[in-house]
Formats: sequence, C-alpha cells, structure tokens
Amino acid sequence: MLLQHFVDRLRLGSLPPTHAVTQSLAAIAAREPAVRAWTHVAPQQTLLAQAQGVDPGLPLAGVPFGVKDIIDVAGMPTRCGSNVTPDAPRAYDAACVDMLRRAGAIPLGKTVTAEFAFKAPGPTTNPHNPAHTPGGSSSGSAAAVAAGMAPFALGTQTGGSMIRPAAYCGVVGFKPSFGLVPRDGMKLTCESLDVIGWYGAELEDVACVARVLLPDPAMGTASAGQGPLRVVLIPGAAIAPVQPEAEQALEQAASALRQAGHAVRTLAPFAQAGALLQAHATIMEYELARNIAPVARLHGAGLSPQLEGTVRRGLGIGARQYREARQLQASMQRAWDALAGEADLIVTASAGGTAPAGLGHTGDGVFNKIWSLLGWPSLHLPLARAAGSGLPVGVQLVGRHGQDALFLALAARLRDALRAHVSDRQAA
Amino acid sequence: MLLQHFVDRLRLGSLPPTHAVTQSLAAIAAREPAVRAWTHVAPQQTLLAQAQGVDPGLPLAGVPFGVKDIIDVAGMPTRCGSNVTPDAPRAYDAACVDMLRRAGAIPLGKTVTAEFAFKAPGPTTNPHNPAHTPGGSSSGSAAAVAAGMAPFALGTQTGGSMIRPAAYCGVVGFKPSFGLVPRDGMKLTCESLDVIGWYGAELEDVACVARVLLPDPAMGTASAGQGPLRVVLIPGAAIAPVQPEAEQALEQAASALRQAGHAVRTLAPFAQAGALLQAHATIMEYELARNIAPVARLHGAGLSPQLEGTVRRGLGIGARQYREARQLQASMQRAWDALAGEADLIVTASAGGTAPAGLGHTGDGVFNKIWSLLGWPSLHLPLARAAGSGLPVGVQLVGRHGQDALFLALAARLRDALRAHVSDRQAA
Repeated sequence: MLLQHFVDRLRLGSLPPTHAVTQSLAAIAAREPAVRAWTHVAPQQTLLAQAQGVDPGLPLAGVPFGVKDIIDVAGMPTRCGSNVTPDAPRAYDAACVDMLRRAGAIPLGKTVTAEFAFKAPGPTTNPHNPAHTPGGSSSGSAAAVAAGMAPFALGTQTGGSMIRPAAYCGVVGFKPSFGLVPRDGMKLTCESLDVIGWYGAELEDVACVARVLLPDPAMGTASAGQGPLRVVLIPGAAIAPVQPEAEQALEQAASALRQAGHAVRTLAPFAQAGALLQAHATIMEYELARNIAPVARLHGAGLSPQLEGTVRRGLGIGARQYREARQLQASMQRAWDALAGEADLIVTASAGGTAPAGLGHTGDGVFNKIWSLLGWPSLHLPLARAAGSGLPVGVQLVGRHGQDALFLALAARLRDALRAHVSDRQAA
Repeated sequence: MLLQHFVDRLRLGSLPPTHAVTQSLAAIAAREPAVRAWTHVAPQQTLLAQAQGVDPGLPLAGVPFGVKDIIDVAGMPTRCGSNVTPDAPRAYDAACVDMLRRAGAIPLGKTVTAEFAFKAPGPTTNPHNPAHTPGGSSSGSAAAVAAGMAPFALGTQTGGSMIRPAAYCGVVGFKPSFGLVPRDGMKLTCESLDVIGWYGAELEDVACVARVLLPDPAMGTASAGQGPLRVVLIPGAAIAPVQPEAEQALEQAASALRQAGHAVRTLAPFAQAGALLQAHATIMEYELARNIAPVARLHGAGLSPQLEGTVRRGLGIGARQYREARQLQASMQRAWDALAGEADLIVTASAGGTAPAGLGHTGDGVFNKIWSLLGWPSLHLPLARAAGSGLPVGVQLVGRHGQDALFLALAARLRDALRAHVSDRQAA
C-alpha cells in the first residue's frame, strides 16, 4: 500500500493508527532472522503507544521508518557499524529524524551500515537471495524496505551508498541534492559529499518523505509538463565495465522512452568521467581520513584493515591535490548545461549488474560517485527481475541540483512511460 | 611569546616541553576565578604527561589550546552551554581537535559558550573589566586567550560568534573561509553558516594554527606583494549604528594606511547590506530551529525563553523564503568583484563599539553576519585601548573566499602598516 493511501485512510478512520507499526513488526518477525537488517528495534509497546498518540492530520502520521545506524535517534545507540563505538543511547534525535517525528513518523529502530558508512559489510543479506550482498553502505535500510519491514528508511550516500543498495535490493532509492537535508546528528565522514537520502517501495512514497525533509518550494506542486522528455543516456560502460543485464536494462529503458515519444540522446564517451572519479576519490579519502582519525587514534586495531589503511593513505594526500579536486567539484556542480545540455534528466546505470554473490563485500559504487561529487539529485528506479537469477534490475536517474521536486515529477513521468511499455509488451 | 618561538625553542631544547602547559595552568589558577572562561580543564598530570611525550618536531609541539564547548574532545563532556545536555564524556575528538593533536597540540579543556552557540550568555567576564561582557558565543575561548590562559583556542561563528568576542576581548580572532575546516564532532546549529575558527594573541599565532587546520596549498608561502594594498573601507554605519570609538578606530586605520601609501576607497552606502542581513537572519533561524528542535522536544522548558522562541519562530519560516535566502547567499558568495572590485582586502567594523557593560547579554554581531553569510575569511585585528574605559578596539578584515593564506599574509602587511603608524605618532 502506498504511504499516502495509508495516511489518508488513517485520517478517515478506516485504519487504526497502529496499522503500519503492526505490519512492520510482523514483517520484522518474519524476515529479520534471514535478512538481518536491524541493529536495534524499539520495544513494541513504545512503538504502539507512539502510533496511538499520533495526530492523524500530520503528513506521515503513524508511518514507521528505519534509520541508518550512523544517524542518531534519541534513546537508541549509534554504533556506526563498528564494535569500537560506545553503546550508550544518544540523547537527541538527528535533525532529520526530529523533522520526521514532527510530521508524525515513528522511528522503528536502527539499520545496519557498513563500518563507518565505508566498505566493510555488516551482517545484512539480500532479501531476494540471502547468498548475495544487499549492497552498502546503507545495507540495512535498503533491505528493510525491500523486505517490507519498513515503509521507508533513511540512508546516506558519500560514494554510492544509497543508489547501489537500492539497485541490488530492488527498491526506490533517492539521494537528494547536496546541502538540503540537515546533517546534524549524523556521523560525517566526508563533509563535501555526504547526503542523507531515503528508500521507499514506490516513487510516490519517496516523494511523500521529500515533502517533509526537503525545503523545496515546488515540492508537491512541480509539473513535469506534457511534452516529450529530453533524456541524456549515459551507458554504464562509459563509466566502468558492466554486466550485460545492467546495459540491457538501460537499452530497454531507452527504447521504451523512444517508443513513448521521448527524445533520448546517448552521451558516450563520457569525456569527464575519469577526472570526476579521480576528484571524488581524492576528496573522499582526504576527508574520510580526517573524520575517522579520531577513532583510529583510540581504537586503530578495532577498525577493519581496509578502513585503517584508507585513513592512513588519506592523511597523506596533500593540500594541493585536495583543493584542486574541490575546485573541479565546485566548477562542475554548476555545469549541468555543459554536461547534459538541455536535457531534463540523465538516465544511466545504477550499478554494474545485479547484486553480486557473497556477503564479504558490498559491490561497487563507481556508477554513483560522479553524481555524489556533483551533488545532483539521483534516484534508483527498479524496473524488473533479471532472467535466471530473479535479482532486481533498474536504472539510475539524475537531475539538476536544487530542483528536487521537479526531478521527482520528471522521474514519475519516466517511470510511467517505462511501466506502460512493460504492460504493452506483456499484452502483446 | 609567539607560538612559533616557543615551538622553535622547544625543538632546540632551550625550553622544556611542559613549559607552555605549565604557563597556561598558572594563568588559569590566577585568572579563572574572575574570568570564568572554562567549563572543564583536564587534570594537570594528564596535561604534563602529554607535553612530556610530545614529538618536538611537530608544528604545534606542546602547545595547549582551549576548545569551545560545542566541539568534542575525547574524555571530556560537551555541554553546549546548557544544563539539559548530558555530562557523559565524549568518546572521540572532533576532527579538528584530532588534527591539532596530531600536530602536537594539547587540548587543555573546554571553554564557555553561549547556550547552543546562540545568545544566552555563560558566566565568562571580560578579562579587561569583569563588569563587561566578553562577547559571544565563543566567550570562553576569546577570554581565555586574552587572559593568557591558552596560547590559542577554538571557537565557531554562525553570525558574529568569533569576531565580536575577539573585538571585545582584544585578541586576534580568525574565521576561515566556509567549508575548509571539518565540522564532524561539533554541534551544528546552522549548516550553511557554521565555521570553526580560532583566537590567538598575535596574527602569527593564528597563522601557525592555520597551517595545521586549513588545506590551503599556499599556507606559509603566500606572498602579499610589495606594492600598495588596495583596501575597501566599509564604515560601520553603512551596516548598523555604531559608537564613536568604533568609527574612530576605522578612521585612524584608514588614515594610517593612506599615509603608508596604500589605496583606501570608502564604500558607503553599502547597498546590499539590508538584503544580506535579511538573508542571514532567514537562514540562521530556519536552520537553527531544525537543529535545536530535537533538544527542545525533550527539554523545551530547560532552554532559555529566547532560544525556545527562536526555535518556534524558525520552524514557521517557509521553504520559499529559505530557498530564496540560500540562493542570494550562493550568488553573492562568488561576487567579491561586484562588491569590492579589485580590492585586496575589506576593512570594516568588528563590533559597534567596545565591550558593553553587563553580563546578561553578549553584544551585537550585526557587523559580522554578512561575512558569515558570504563565507569569506574574516579576522579581528586589535589596535588599541579606548581612551577612558581602557577596553580594546580594533578593526575587522575580510578577504576572498578560499584564499586564506593570502588573506593572512595581506592582514600581516596591513597590521605592520598600522603598527608603524602608531609608533610614528608615539615618537612624534
């Protein structure tokens, strides 16, 4: 059921205010033993009492949500996917959690993150196949939504930590424009890159949450127009090697869009990709090192060798290299026109393929890093299941910085065109 | 003694590594009962052991420093100038504290902040007259440096929280460009405005710390040239009403600069001032409200009525008003040329006059807010004592975004010109 329908029915009294919480708790009881998405779930009685007390006029009344465990929730610990962090409950909500609470939403609990939102995976499995990674670093949030354990869940992205798990788990994942959702109360790892985003089962659910968290005056009223959409298609291979199923998803999307009368222009090669990826790597390692060093100083041996090595390497990056990367970032952030011309949307690969097998890694975020660097809003749109594995596939959409409401409206039009195409083919 | 001289002598073995810590502890013993700058001081034995163990080759070897109590230091509580916050010690240093530690500096303790770095004052008095405010919100850090209790101290600025206390206490206060010093481990109040800065007795001390904290490739090597400086003078009255002593300090500075052969152009009226101040107020209240709301929800009655009212008002600001203010900020941040033309530096009032009497308020930061909004580096340069009160007066310097090394070098040339003028007049 769409979030909005639930809230509407709750307001009309045709559903009890505890309905969604009860549903989530039942799904957690059923799926959590295999999926392992949560590090902490609030007591049932607390959650039910909160739902009972909610004002049914609020936009997210009674809607439970998961919170990636690098974001504080009052009364719950924040472990950052690490054993070295303190397990004392936090005093206050992060600003974004409080905003959701004031809108009537109810924090269910904390979800598994890779160690300090970097690479070393937690215990979460892919809800579609427990032998495959759910992606990372927002592993638990994506998996919780995919398994029906939460209607939505907060994650974060610095490289590919929102979009990749959405792709692997087959949910809608939305990374808003950089700088619009407040980050107080989250563990910053890379201040020039970190963005709080969220997962939902449907685009409309993600938009419901956006109306609460994003200060976009057009939110809820933006029109995506009626005429043909202008889409720039960036093949995955223009960024990094991809599996056939990822490129097929893109090709099918492009052909469906063309068939529906939209204009699709392919951008390949993507001349700036190498420089942008290099700038992302420099900024990420430089900043991550300085933000994890305080932990490494006290508990160096308690970090994964991968993280400890990255901190050591990042501390050695020189000021000139870092500032040049920041300058490239700043100049390209305003360069939508140079990169995508008059396009309304960019469509590109979310990941290099379906969720890879194994739980010892979280896959590769290379297809998301450029859009993290640029701070442009991006979204994973699930499209289908791969033949054979049955694992989800989809595409990544990217929009103009700061125009998140318009981006979500355009994404809905594009999604409708793709769905109509799938229905046509099924009918044929 | 200048920081650099101390570190040089320590390296040569002509001073024991505990020298600066011992000096700070003696000054704290002597001055703290009246000045009340500290909320927490580390145990003497801990500090001496840290100094003994320091690598004398490090750039800030054995240099103790104070930390505004909204920035975490491992093992010390972070109270944010409020009784409602938890007093448990923090697990980790803020990133900036760890950077200083890795450079050999030693956190002495936590300094008094106004409540959540906003307006309600702590107990600190002005070291030059205990009946006068030290300014705020970085009250304790400015007063600690002014009273010789710490060679340098970290503060933060969102409106005028670095520069105003520097002016009232008669120390050098430096607010770097927005976005260069990492903020992980500090309480964010306004993410689009908050900047970590520091106080020192001399410009050279502030520059020593800048070489550690700022990723500016030119730091330590930037040349301010030999030719005449081009200075834009913005009279305090072009921004808000000022006391005569503030305008006199500016006029004397301008005449000294002209006498030394520098070019001084007066900018008045300052056409954009009203719109910039309005944008600052909108952004500050909108963001502050969302970042303090999690505290207000749990402890509303424990906040000052002023802060509680500001949170309530800020939550009511609409998305359109906020986004328009952010857009003005973004466009003007890149508009040095439009505002100051070819100028090397802006010289303007740091405050409306000397530190006002009374400890129930922290004075007015209106003269600093525009530079906080724009994110340009700014600095308070103490110049003299006011006739009569004996309270410090000085001027505020402002430079181009991101060129902090050049800014500090230019500030040193300007300071030298002003000092030479004072010497000339004294000799005459």
